[in-house]
Amino acid sequence: MVDATSDARTTRPLRLGMVGGGRGAFIGAVHRLCARMDGQFELVAGALSSDAQRARDSGADLGLAPDRAYMSFAQMAAAEAKRPDGIEVVSIVTPNDSHHAIARAFLDRGIDVICDKPMTTTVEDALDLVQAVRRSGLVFGLTHNYTGYPLVRQAREMVAAGELGPIRVVQVEYVQDWLTTKLEDTGHKQAGWRVDPQRAGAGGCLGDIGTHAYNLADFVTGLHVRELAADLGRFVEGRRLDDNVHVLLRYESGVRGMLWASQVAPGNENGLRLRVYGETAGLEWSQEHPNQLRFALVGRPPQILSRGGPSLGPAAARATRIPSGHPEGYLEGFANLYRDLAEQIRARRAKRAPDGQALLVPTVEDGARGVKFIAAAVESSAQNGAWVDARVTV
Amino acid sequence: MVDATSDARTTRPLRLGMVGGGRGAFIGAVHRLCARMDGQFELVAGALSSDAQRARDSGADLGLAPDRAYMSFAQMAAAEAKRPDGIEVVSIVTPNDSHHAIARAFLDRGIDVICDKPMTTTVEDALDLVQAVRRSGLVFGLTHNYTGYPLVRQAREMVAAGELGPIRVVQVEYVQDWLTTKLEDTGHKQAGWRVDPQRAGAGGCLGDIGTHAYNLADFVTGLHVRELAADLGRFVEGRRLDDNVHVLLRYESGVRGMLWASQVAPGNENGLRLRVYGETAGLEWSQEHPNQLRFALVGRPPQILSRGGPSLGPAAARATRIPSGHPEGYLEGFANLYRDLAEQIRARRAKRAPDGQALLVPTVEDGARGVKFIAAAVESSAQNGAWVDARVTV
Amino acid sequence: MVDATSDARTTRPLRLGMVGGGRGAFIGAVHRLCARMDGQFELVAGALSSDAQRARDSGADLGLAPDRAYMSFAQMAAAEAKRPDGIEVVSIVTPNDSHHAIARAFLDRGIDVICDKPMTTTVEDALDLVQAVRRSGLVFGLTHNYTGYPLVRQAREMVAAGELGPIRVVQVEYVQDWLTTKLEDTGHKQAGWRVDPQRAGAGGCLGDIGTHAYNLADFVTGLHVRELAADLGRFVEGRRLDDNVHVLLRYESGVRGMLWASQVAPGNENGLRLRVYGETAGLEWSQEHPNQLRFALVGRPPQILSRGGPSLGPAAARATRIPSGHPEGYLEGFANLYRDLAEQIRARRAKRAPDGQALLVPTVEDGARGVKFIAAAVESSAQNGAWVDARVTV
Amino acid sequence: MVDATSDARTTRPLRLGMVGGGRGAFIGAVHRLCARMDGQFELVAGALSSDAQRARDSGADLGLAPDRAYMSFAQMAAAEAKRPDGIEVVSIVTPNDSHHAIARAFLDRGIDVICDKPMTTTVEDALDLVQAVRRSGLVFGLTHNYTGYPLVRQAREMVAAGELGPIRVVQVEYVQDWLTTKLEDTGHKQAGWRVDPQRAGAGGCLGDIGTHAYNLADFVTGLHVRELAADLGRFVEGRRLDDNVHVLLRYESGVRGMLWASQVAPGNENGLRLRVYGETAGLEWSQEHPNQLRFALVGRPPQILSRGGPSLGPAAARATRIPSGHPEGYLEGFANLYRDLAEQIRARRAKRAPDGQALLVPTVEDGARGVKFIAAAVESSAQNGAWVDARVTV
Repeated sequence: MVDATSDARTTRPLRLGMVGGGRGAFIGAVHRLCARMDGQFELVAGALSSDAQRARDSGADLGLAPDRAYMSFAQMAAAEAKRPDGIEVVSIVTPNDSHHAIARAFLDRGIDVICDKPMTTTVEDALDLVQAVRRSGLVFGLTHNYTGYPLVRQAREMVAAGELGPIRVVQVEYVQDWLTTKLEDTGHKQAGWRVDPQRAGAGGCLGDIGTHAYNLADFVTGLHVRELAADLGRFVEGRRLDDNVHVLLRYESGVRGMLWASQVAPGNENGLRLRVYGETAGLEWSQEHPNQLRFALVGRPPQILSRGGPSLGPAAARATRIPSGHPEGYLEGFANLYRDLAEQIRARRAKRAPDGQALLVPTVEDGARGVKFIAAAVESSAQNGAWVDARVTV
Repeated sequence: MVDATSDARTTRPLRLGMVGGGRGAFIGAVHRLCARMDGQFELVAGALSSDAQRARDSGADLGLAPDRAYMSFAQMAAAEAKRPDGIEVVSIVTPNDSHHAIARAFLDRGIDVICDKPMTTTVEDALDLVQAVRRSGLVFGLTHNYTGYPLVRQAREMVAAGELGPIRVVQVEYVQDWLTTKLEDTGHKQAGWRVDPQRAGAGGCLGDIGTHAYNLADFVTGLHVRELAADLGRFVEGRRLDDNVHVLLRYESGVRGMLWASQVAPGNENGLRLRVYGETAGLEWSQEHPNQLRFALVGRPPQILSRGGPSLGPAAARATRIPSGHPEGYLEGFANLYRDLAEQIRARRAKRAPDGQALLVPTVEDGARGVKFIAAAVESSAQNGAWVDARVTV
Repeated sequence: MVDATSDARTTRPLRLGMVGGGRGAFIGAVHRLCARMDGQFELVAGALSSDAQRARDSGADLGLAPDRAYMSFAQMAAAEAKRPDGIEVVSIVTPNDSHHAIARAFLDRGIDVICDKPMTTTVEDALDLVQAVRRSGLVFGLTHNYTGYPLVRQAREMVAAGELGPIRVVQVEYVQDWLTTKLEDTGHKQAGWRVDPQRAGAGGCLGDIGTHAYNLADFVTGLHVRELAADLGRFVEGRRLDDNVHVLLRYESGVRGMLWASQVAPGNENGLRLRVYGETAGLEWSQEHPNQLRFALVGRPPQILSRGGPSLGPAAARATRIPSGHPEGYLEGFANLYRDLAEQIRARRAKRAPDGQALLVPTVEDGARGVKFIAAAVESSAQNGAWVDARVTV
Repeated sequence: MVDATSDARTTRPLRLGMVGGGRGAFIGAVHRLCARMDGQFELVAGALSSDAQRARDSGADLGLAPDRAYMSFAQMAAAEAKRPDGIEVVSIVTPNDSHHAIARAFLDRGIDVICDKPMTTTVEDALDLVQAVRRSGLVFGLTHNYTGYPLVRQAREMVAAGELGPIRVVQVEYVQDWLTTKLEDTGHKQAGWRVDPQRAGAGGCLGDIGTHAYNLADFVTGLHVRELAADLGRFVEGRRLDDNVHVLLRYESGVRGMLWASQVAPGNENGLRLRVYGETAGLEWSQEHPNQLRFALVGRPPQILSRGGPSLGPAAARATRIPSGHPEGYLEGFANLYRDLAEQIRARRAKRAPDGQALLVPTVEDGARGVKFIAAAVESSAQNGAWVDARVTV
């Protein structure tokens, strides 16, 4: 809950750099807003665009000192690592194909990393990052931002506490409609790179939103998929990557599930929905109305849990800023990751253990699982929906 | 809409017999109520139970003449066929394994048939009924009752009119929780036969509710599945048939879909939900709130169509009894099938064409498709989810 | 719940007559369908229209014997009272101004009465009917049909059991849009008489739907209004009766409330909604989704009670035909009144006490309260919203 | 929409001071977060508590320079006005009774004011502030924060554009349950002052949330109430101010309405809901799901407008940060007021006209109307619900 100390600067804000996110970008501005929300970060450097002029202009827009508006991430990593007041953490908000090289550049110089998803475009790169993070002992946070919603954390806590009994069935979906028409042909920047295998990797809809759904199911259930069978579709003529994803899931210990992701389903905006059923109870959560969680025990009327309301546990409470009935949204959920990462970074620097709840942020290992999911789904679909191993040894 | 003529006995009620539906049965009473609702049928004979005493008592309960409370369907078919005032149509509401023999008995004597679903327990029996119906020229209605909801018919009409453009994706599910525990061990009659392969056939959840979902998708889209890949689960220890069904669908002409049916999902009652997406629009309908239909054109705000409300077509109008905002439910939707079948039967007897809308009732061919669906899903699952042909030549 | 005995004709159906409800009428057909639903009534006589030809034709439509299709209610009352097989109960479904005379005609001949609401157009007539019913010892049921919904009865039972604690606040509303334009000028029959003071009485929206809302609040809370302050509006130019009703309510024992009824609120169909708040819990119910009841204890997550689902009491159970998740609607709720009245009538004739639950049908005294409500609201509004006594001594 | 320029520091952040909002306060932290969200303000001074030690500690928490953590607002106003780097704007987040004196202190020294609601505790004080603001030419924003929601602004724009036709009926409510029990006796700080006439003024629930509802109706309809009739309740024994508010409203030009505010309605969190009906359409909005707006034209299916979605106008677009389907909430809506006030302040200082949309923030005149509403409702209730003039000449 927000009180006078929630935005207390018990220490100065962390110095943040950003790669990507220049003029015209979307997700970079979201990262900046979320970093700013709780007063825990100060943006001081950026390699905001691969275009030199845009990099400079974008830096000026954001009040960066001209010498810290870099022309490339390599230059930035080198220069910032040398400054006594250099950045302590970098946010990587570029297209997928560059995440690996950028993350390595900063990790190798001892700078903590916040990275957008999917983490890399190949499993090899993903595993390399896992090693790099482990070697370095640095903080690495992957912004599967939906895990920051208070009621998603509540759901995870309830499953972990056994309130649903052993899990049986998991249904997860992420449904959009913005690529129903061939938006990429209109010069739409976001659409352009997301359907380009060079920049997005082997998965279109799969990587863009399918991974969010996959990660959400993992996060809430604490389970990992053992094997999957996928049927990828490309419904818009001439599109180069999948825009509809149907996957059957088999988890550890006999749990079964389904994942549907689509970007061609008219009437859906960001329909990320999770349903989990165990032997004694079930729960449902929907991203578009994130402040409620439906929980039903066998033989009892369903309950509507509310963010900030009765019967919630510590995980949700810690992720909550304002009282129940005053909705929090996407930005607050996303900002919870930034707040948690600030705690992780401060703890690492102070050589103390972080608050345990701050460790809920998806990790480099979760990133590797997500990349493996993409690879396995592409492989399964290429084999006409054969079951493919989705495990990754990390 | 109900007006003074909607229950007009322009001719006398049709004489109805029933097989099954004695004391303690559920669906038989529903059939009777629905037959009675519009005043188009009069129950005059029954083979209500295979137990002689219960057959007699049940007949008395319902005011049947003692000599028309038969001890077996065979006796009833023979006797009624001889009476000048014999039944004109029979409703079959027994467990699945007996449908074929009973239907044949009445068809072979020239009596129209209303049959519960799934139609038979084997594809061979199903095809045999197709032939029998065609040979006889009789009316055969299969009570996939959800097709009787006005807004389901509206949805069908809109798809057929091209209001969604060419269809791309179909998501359908039917989710319950009543078999989350091992109810069949408690003496629960409905649960008992549904999980018994002898009486239910090869599909448990698959036949009980999966077929409803499958039929609903067919009905609304006008499409048939070409092949499917299924993953059947039995989550309750010792249960003999599936209680959770995950199916990938490939329709004609590249349409893809998913079907989920479950009877072990706590917090779900009769969650039959259909979502259909085309190139230009999408629609959603949910059985638990059947009086609304969500329709979204690309680039326009979604609309909430309401039974009896603005912008509905003739199919919904004909299936509607009372004004918008006064909810109609399961029984009215079910009764619409009975009303339509009354029209089909009267038309057949009068050697005239029936009202075209009355032909929306699922047919013996639809029944064959449903039985093939069960067989194909069982086969696919036995082959670890291999794609199996779901077509049936009828 | 429906089982083989729910439609058991343990005795023959009751012989029913109807006044009003001829061709082109709406509510008469609803009454007939509801009477027919449970097999407890058989329509055998009618004075279906004040127009002789329409009365004859309507009788033929419904299969009445020609000599029992009467030209007037007076003729019908006289003739049926003399027949050994005369009607046992009459349903009065005419415009409001004729209810009193018709009801008296049948009561005075010993025939039980089912009467549409509002009961009369004057308090004097209402009190006269109270006396006539008491004198005669006959059954009199007033079709405030919304009281027949299972979850409305559940709500009443919960309030009576103290599950909400002492009641504090009652909010009730009934909102429609069908009279937003001047429909009465288009020849619309239903609109025509409802806005005509000669036939509808002093209240337009007030009598048509305001009384339903008023009765519903009474029914659920078990409380009666002591005084009210009303602000009646006529928004459509030239309309002769109110089409929007704002009322402040003061109940017995300090409970306060608000009632809003409107027929000029675009986007509302039959938005009858009740919210009741006590010291320890609150509940909400909406007619358009009648199978759910929201119940919230202080300091606990709200629960969604479901018709047929867990935690319901005997009142709801008795009013329920089919399992949870298969929606029942307006007609089933309405038919519950007919089923209860059948029990009342059979009990009266058998000189036994009826099933207590069958006594939940609104009574002649409730009718008098409803008529007094109309009169008090009209008076208050005429006095610029002064508080007016709403009590009636019955 | 958020893009690289939305958080562009085209000029430096405005220097912000705060009165109130020290440790343990709620709304002060919300104001700070909202001020910070878009990078347009920097908190540099505060009189954060009337307790000296808490003022110091709170200042340190927030990183204020020790000499700018003042012991009183008077001291702060005097000192900051003299500094060359003094605050440019002050946020007043104290209990109601101190707003007037504090606002005057800063206005009189040429400092722009952001003030919490209700503006003052007497109409006289409110009118005095109106004069002070006009005399000074300064910016004064009243944080009726719900007006910052994009779809509230959309609703206002649609009404103003005539999309509903002439307005007829307005229904507004703000319903909570947090004061169902006597929370003020438990040492709860927020509850304590809100039910204390010394600090809250003459209205309890009336001032705390009733004014929000009242303002919201005004904001969306562009209409003002002419007269009102109120029935105030105090349901919790021993409570000194109203906790339930029932009001009938008569607007200019014949529009009628109802306002309900309650803090004793179990199961309600922050149920602020507005419904507006005109001759040709109606709309509904609910604060707990603020990203949707239901809009229904007569004779057309209702539409669900979505923040960021199709068919929205410029007012909503300007108030929107992220795409449709990613919910924005209370904080973003509140922050829109801060963003608009930043524009107003920058425009005033630059002697240019502000962006017209930035003028949507409730003004000192709106504050006066709100205070008059409280006074009129208290007076009406004291006169047993007599109609009282609610107009204020400003």
